[in-house]
Amino acid sequence: MNQIFITGVAGFIGSTLADRLLAAGKTVVGWDNFSTGQRKFLAGALAQKNFQLIEGDNLDLSALTRAIAGCDTVFHLAANADVRFGLEHPARDLQQNTVATFNVLEAMRANGIRRIAFSSTGSVYGEAEKIPTPEDAPFPIQTSLYAASKVSGEGMISSYCEGFKFEGYIFRFVSILGERYTHGHIFDFYKQLLEHPDRLKILGDGSQRKSYLYVQDCVSAMLHVMNLNTALKAKHQVEIYNLGTDEYVQVNNSIGYIAGALGLKPKLEYTGGSRGWVGDNPFIFLDTKKIQGTGWKPALTIEQGIIRTLHWLQANQWVYETRH
Amino acid sequence: MNQIFITGVAGFIGSTLADRLLAAGKTVVGWDNFSTGQRKFLAGALAQKNFQLIEGDNLDLSALTRAIAGCDTVFHLAANADVRFGLEHPARDLQQNTVATFNVLEAMRANGIRRIAFSSTGSVYGEAEKIPTPEDAPFPIQTSLYAASKVSGEGMISSYCEGFKFEGYIFRFVSILGERYTHGHIFDFYKQLLEHPDRLKILGDGSQRKSYLYVQDCVSAMLHVMNLNTALKAKHQVEIYNLGTDEYVQVNNSIGYIAGALGLKPKLEYTGGSRGWVGDNPFIFLDTKKIQGTGWKPALTIEQGIIRTLHWLQANQWVYETRH
Repeated sequence: MNQIFITGVAGFIGSTLADRLLAAGKTVVGWDNFSTGQRKFLAGALAQKNFQLIEGDNLDLSALTRAIAGCDTVFHLAANADVRFGLEHPARDLQQNTVATFNVLEAMRANGIRRIAFSSTGSVYGEAEKIPTPEDAPFPIQTSLYAASKVSGEGMISSYCEGFKFEGYIFRFVSILGERYTHGHIFDFYKQLLEHPDRLKILGDGSQRKSYLYVQDCVSAMLHVMNLNTALKAKHQVEIYNLGTDEYVQVNNSIGYIAGALGLKPKLEYTGGSRGWVGDNPFIFLDTKKIQGTGWKPALTIEQGIIRTLHWLQANQWVYETRH
Repeated sequence: MNQIFITGVAGFIGSTLADRLLAAGKTVVGWDNFSTGQRKFLAGALAQKNFQLIEGDNLDLSALTRAIAGCDTVFHLAANADVRFGLEHPARDLQQNTVATFNVLEAMRANGIRRIAFSSTGSVYGEAEKIPTPEDAPFPIQTSLYAASKVSGEGMISSYCEGFKFEGYIFRFVSILGERYTHGHIFDFYKQLLEHPDRLKILGDGSQRKSYLYVQDCVSAMLHVMNLNTALKAKHQVEIYNLGTDEYVQVNNSIGYIAGALGLKPKLEYTGGSRGWVGDNPFIFLDTKKIQGTGWKPALTIEQGIIRTLHWLQANQWVYETRH
């Protein structure tokens, strides 16, 4: 792992990963179409000689194939991550996730690059009956186009591992938070409280149980297993890992942390129902024994991660002025 | 279920289904791009006033949207079914299966059609550890682009069931055989024996264990559960069923049935190894308790199905002259 290609390098996780790799002395080629990525997140990376930024879109296979040349490892993080509004633009997950992932694989194959890490999601388990949910949970029924597109990406990657001897690391993330976080419930709640500190509207009944992981812990987990080359020893040259912590929080808990840190007591207005939106999963909690068995564990609790996220949003209110 | 749209209507299963529906007095609109479909298979259907054939490709969304108008149920059977050579043209499964299925869903949505049956595959279980493999087997690792594309199709369909209140019937087929069978091991073996009755080349070591289902049994199973409207009662308005029999055969057993029926004793030449090709699954055997629990069961054994298939190939050697 010397010259590393990152798709979605201007995103929340991609830019954090780039900074970590550059700090470790690696050479990084970053790729982003800036549809949701933020140039400000790359300020540090762009100041380093080991970093090259190439602007382009995963749907442009020939440009991608040229950009990726010479790299030995790919972190494919670019995606349409808008889970909630998938039904409003059904083609987006297909194009930006499924087709884009295929193009990344083909660009790699054309260049003889075989090592890939992929950001999948705990949403692939649908409404899991087994909680905490392990990687080999019962074959789930997909309930969102976002998760369906990630399952599709996983399937193509593992097929390339089997058929073309790729080495695949598939990470099923819980929701990630921390510095550079630009969408999700903390983002929305803090925005509301900036506008009207006395009240807060909550989708659903607040009882939804969700899991979160701090972005630096997420990056550490990926680098940890890739440094161990675990996929090379796996049956199909692919390893799938849940990434999360040993805990979950209710949306109501999270509201308490946020309001407490801000010194506010907003009136809570619930839209009602057990789901925040159609396809929302009211309980996501992943079994992380597999990744923890490799020696990794998260440094921050969910509460600590939420507070850090809030502090970052307080110091970076410019993110509310940019398009999402 | 009165006016029914069938994608891949000129195929092996599609044409058989069309004949059955027409015989039951239904109106059928057939759709095929004739990339692998056979006009001869539609001779009977085309003679009936309740049948309309529209030539077109699933990748042409606007034509598909016009063709599907007025139907109330869709059987989406069109696919690239070439499992074995997926690695030689990786884009084919993505386009003809994943993107095509998305287009079918969008064409339905544009017309307010919500009832869909989908031909998936037992290959979605990868190399299953649990055999016979039930629908809720452990979340599998995909080993072929074909199966990955079918998992992708399943995921989009179930997401449309959840998000747009579609009613979905997903059928995971074992290999189907019977009249109009135009590819697979019986097709290959009989072709070889026509050319040189004294010898037979076998991919792998002949110990591969496979499951088969007779095409009329396959059609009966689909119609049976759809007449019961089982998906309407399911949690996410989607039901997934394995389709197969209670048995499997080894490739060597099948050779015995075929050679015996032909009165031949060919010298068997094995290419060796436990797999016929890269990504070949040496043991597919599905648990069919779920579909059998609805009252359906297959009429023919695998041996009976193989013999019928052979007799049909003997009487229809023209299929060897057409492109596959």
